[in-house]
Amino acid sequence: MALNKSPYRGTRDFFPRDMRLRNFIFHKMAEVSEQYAYEPYDGPLLEEVELYLAKSGEELINEQIYSFIDRGERNVAIRPEMTPTLARMVAQVHRETPKPIRMYAIPNLMRYEKPQKGRLREFWQYNADIFGAGMLGEIEILQMCVSLLKSFGANSSQFGVHINDRRFVDFIFNGLIGLDEVSNKKLYKLVDRKNKMPAEKFAAEVRAIITEEDKAKIFEAYTGLTSAADIKNFIDKYFSETGVSDFHHNKTASPVAVSSHVAPLLETLKKISELGLDEYVKFDPSIVRGLDYYTGLVFEIFDKHPDNNRAIAGGGSYANLLQIFNEQALEGVGIGLGEVPLTEFLKAHNLMPDFSKASIDYLVAYLVPEAEAMALNLAQQLRTKWGKKVEVMLGETKPKKVFTYAEKKVVGSVVFVGEEELKANSVKVKDLAERTEETLTLEEFYKKLGME
Amino acid sequence: MALNKSPYRGTRDFFPRDMRLRNFIFHKMAEVSEQYAYEPYDGPLLEEVELYLAKSGEELINEQIYSFIDRGERNVAIRPEMTPTLARMVAQVHRETPKPIRMYAIPNLMRYEKPQKGRLREFWQYNADIFGAGMLGEIEILQMCVSLLKSFGANSSQFGVHINDRRFVDFIFNGLIGLDEVSNKKLYKLVDRKNKMPAEKFAAEVRAIITEEDKAKIFEAYTGLTSAADIKNFIDKYFSETGVSDFHHNKTASPVAVSSHVAPLLETLKKISELGLDEYVKFDPSIVRGLDYYTGLVFEIFDKHPDNNRAIAGGGSYANLLQIFNEQALEGVGIGLGEVPLTEFLKAHNLMPDFSKASIDYLVAYLVPEAEAMALNLAQQLRTKWGKKVEVMLGETKPKKVFTYAEKKVVGSVVFVGEEELKANSVKVKDLAERTEETLTLEEFYKKLGME
Repeated sequence: MALNKSPYRGTRDFFPRDMRLRNFIFHKMAEVSEQYAYEPYDGPLLEEVELYLAKSGEELINEQIYSFIDRGERNVAIRPEMTPTLARMVAQVHRETPKPIRMYAIPNLMRYEKPQKGRLREFWQYNADIFGAGMLGEIEILQMCVSLLKSFGANSSQFGVHINDRRFVDFIFNGLIGLDEVSNKKLYKLVDRKNKMPAEKFAAEVRAIITEEDKAKIFEAYTGLTSAADIKNFIDKYFSETGVSDFHHNKTASPVAVSSHVAPLLETLKKISELGLDEYVKFDPSIVRGLDYYTGLVFEIFDKHPDNNRAIAGGGSYANLLQIFNEQALEGVGIGLGEVPLTEFLKAHNLMPDFSKASIDYLVAYLVPEAEAMALNLAQQLRTKWGKKVEVMLGETKPKKVFTYAEKKVVGSVVFVGEEELKANSVKVKDLAERTEETLTLEEFYKKLGME
Repeated sequence: MALNKSPYRGTRDFFPRDMRLRNFIFHKMAEVSEQYAYEPYDGPLLEEVELYLAKSGEELINEQIYSFIDRGERNVAIRPEMTPTLARMVAQVHRETPKPIRMYAIPNLMRYEKPQKGRLREFWQYNADIFGAGMLGEIEILQMCVSLLKSFGANSSQFGVHINDRRFVDFIFNGLIGLDEVSNKKLYKLVDRKNKMPAEKFAAEVRAIITEEDKAKIFEAYTGLTSAADIKNFIDKYFSETGVSDFHHNKTASPVAVSSHVAPLLETLKKISELGLDEYVKFDPSIVRGLDYYTGLVFEIFDKHPDNNRAIAGGGSYANLLQIFNEQALEGVGIGLGEVPLTEFLKAHNLMPDFSKASIDYLVAYLVPEAEAMALNLAQQLRTKWGKKVEVMLGETKPKKVFTYAEKKVVGSVVFVGEEELKANSVKVKDLAERTEETLTLEEFYKKLGME
C-alpha cells in the first residue's frame, strides 16, 4: 500500500511559497524585537512534564499536551508554550544578569487541538518578555506590540490592544464581590464572552453567579467601563474617599486596597497617553486572562476586521515565575503572538505581499554543451564575488525554453552563452524588467557589476 | 522540591550568545542556498512512524527514534531526519513542478543518542536537495557545499569533500566480490573505519570477510585508489578491454557493467576538475554511506583539523525516494549538514566570530523623571523612522551607571536627556567608538540621521 502524502493532522507542509511568507513574518518579528534591544533565545523542543505541571493551565496539561515516556523512563512533553522554558532559563542566569532582561523567541509549539481556522496542532509563536523593569516594562511591551503590527503596514483601524490589570480585576472579582473559586472562574469565563451575547443575556448570567443584586449592579457597572475617566468615576461612585465602599462594608475595600489595586492601571493609561499610544491601546474590562500566573497588566490584541474579530495575541505581567525553581521573585511582562492568527489578520486586511514566485537575479543558460563549464563558472563568479542569486539551467537548452521557464519566477536578467559567445568569451544579457539586451565580454560584464 | 533548571538531557538552552551564533550559521546556510536558487521549505515536527519505517535505517527506527502513540491512537515520531518528509512533500507536487526542483531547509531533529561531543539528542540539520537534474545536480550540490564552507572563511587546508559513487561501490562489493548481504554490511563498516586502523589490521579484517585471496587483493587495490587516473589503471589492470575480468570470470563484470558502473564517477571527477573544484573535492574509496536509498554519487565533508578529524556532513544521490508513495521515480541528490559538527569545525579553525555581546545602535538614558516621555518618544523615532536598534534605560539614572552598563554590550552611541536637554529640546550624543560628544537639538539630530 502506498504511504499517505498528507502531513500529520493539524500540522502543515511548508512549500516554498508558504515558507517565504513564514520567513517574511519571522523576519519582521526579529527585526522589531532587535530594534527594542530584545535578545534572541530558544530552548529545547522537549521538556520534562513536571515543568508544565507546575505552571501551565489544567486544560493544557490534561487535554492538549503531547507527552510521552522516553527510552530512559522520563516523562517528557513537546513544548505547548514557551514561558515555562523561559522561566527555567532565566532562573539559571538572573542573578548575574543586569536588569532588565529582554528576550524574544519564535519557537514551534504543539498542542493536541481540534484543528480549525486559526488553530492548528503545530504552530509557531512569537514570545517577547522583559524581566525586572516594573511598569515601564509593561509599557515597553505594549509599545513593541504596536510597532510590530505597524511594521506589517497595519493601522489603528485594523487592530487594537485591549488592556486591563489583574490587581484591578482581583479587587472587583475577589475583594468586592468575594466569590468562591468556582464561581470566580465562571465569572472570568462569562466576562470573556460578554461581547458575544446580548446585554440582557449577560445581565441574567451575571445574576446567576452573583446572587446579591447590589454586587451584581457594581459588577455590571465595572463591565461597562471604557476609559481612565470611567474608572475614576466608578471608584468615586461606589467607594467613599476613604476607600470604604459606600454601598456595603466589604472588608477588603480598605483605602490601601483601592489605591494599590487601581492606581497602577490608571498610571499605565496615563503613560500610554503620553506616548501617543491611545490610538492603539484602550482599557477593556472584559480582558481577564484566565492563566494563574498573571499578577499585573493583562492584554490582548484584537483584529477589528468584521469577519475575523478575535484576539491574535495576548500577554501580561507575572511576579512569581521563578518561584518553582526556589529562586527569588523576579517580575516580568510577556507577550505571545501566534503566526496562525497573525497570518489570518494580515490576509483579512490585504497586508500580505505576494510570495507565489521565487526571485532570482540571474538565470544563466547555455545553448551548446561545450559552453557548460563557462556557464557554470560564470554563475559561480556572480554568486561568490557579487552575492547574486543565480540559477543555471542545467543541460544545454534553447532560448524559447529559457523564456518560458523564466516566467515561473521573478527573474532579473537572463544570461545566454551560445556558440558565438563561447568563442568570444562573452555573454548575451537580457534584462527582463528593462527589456534591454546587450552582448558583453565577460570582462565588461564583471566591470559593470562592480559599478552597481 | 524545586524544579530542575537544566534542559532535558542531550538538548540545549540557547541563551542570546548561543542564539546569535546559531542565527549567524543559519543565515549563511540560507544565503548560500538562495544564491544557488534553492527554495526554502519545512515540514511538520511529527510524522507518522510508517513514513520512517519505509525508508530510514534500522538503527534510527529501533534505537533512536522518539515515537509515541498520540491521543488519537496514531503512532507518530518526532522527525529524526528530513529526507522522508521532503520525499512526501515532493511526491505531492512533482508532476506539475518544472524540473529541476531545488529545496533547502534547516529543521530541528531529535534522536535518542548517548550525548557526547558533536552529538546531541536535539540538533538542527541543513538539508539541500535537487530533483530531476542528473549528474549536473550532483555537481551543483558539491559546488554549493564548497561555497557554504568557504562562506564561513574556511579553505581547502581545513576541509575536504570526499566522494565516491554507489554504482562503482556496488560493482566492486556486489558484482565483483559477490558477498551475501551480511558480509557486505560488515565490509561497508570495515571500509568506513579503514583510516582509523593500521594497514595490517585492515588486511586481516578484509580476509576475515573475503575468504578468496584473489578477491581480497582486488578489494585491497580498490581501497588504495585516490584519483581518476588510479581508477582507470585499476580497471585496466584487473579487467580486460572487453570488460571481462582477466583475473577471474565473474559474470557480472560484463562490458556493460564496467562502463555503466565506472563511467559516471569518472565523468563526475572530470567535471569537478573543469570547475576548479579538485582543490576541495577528491575521490575516496572508503566513502560508501550505509543508507539503503543512495544509488549514485555519495560524499562526506571532512574536517582536516588533527584534533577533530571527522565527517561534518554527508549526502548523495537517490533514484527511488518517491516509490513508497506510488509515484514514478524521480532522481535526486541531497546533503545533510548538522549545526553541531559544523560549530565544532568553525571553532577548531577559529572561524567563529565573537557573539558574546549584543549590539545596539543607541542607548538612551534620562537623568530626571520628567524627561521620561521625551526619551521614550525619541527612542521610538529612532526605531521606526531610521530602523535603529535602541535600548532605553528604564527609570531615571546617572551617567556613571549608564557607562558601566554600556560596557556589557557593543553600543554605538549613548544619548542623554537631562534637565538642560529637556528644556532645550536637545540631546547629548556620545559616540563610544569615535569618542566624540555633541549636544544637538532634536531637529539637528534627526537631520544628521537623515544624511547617514
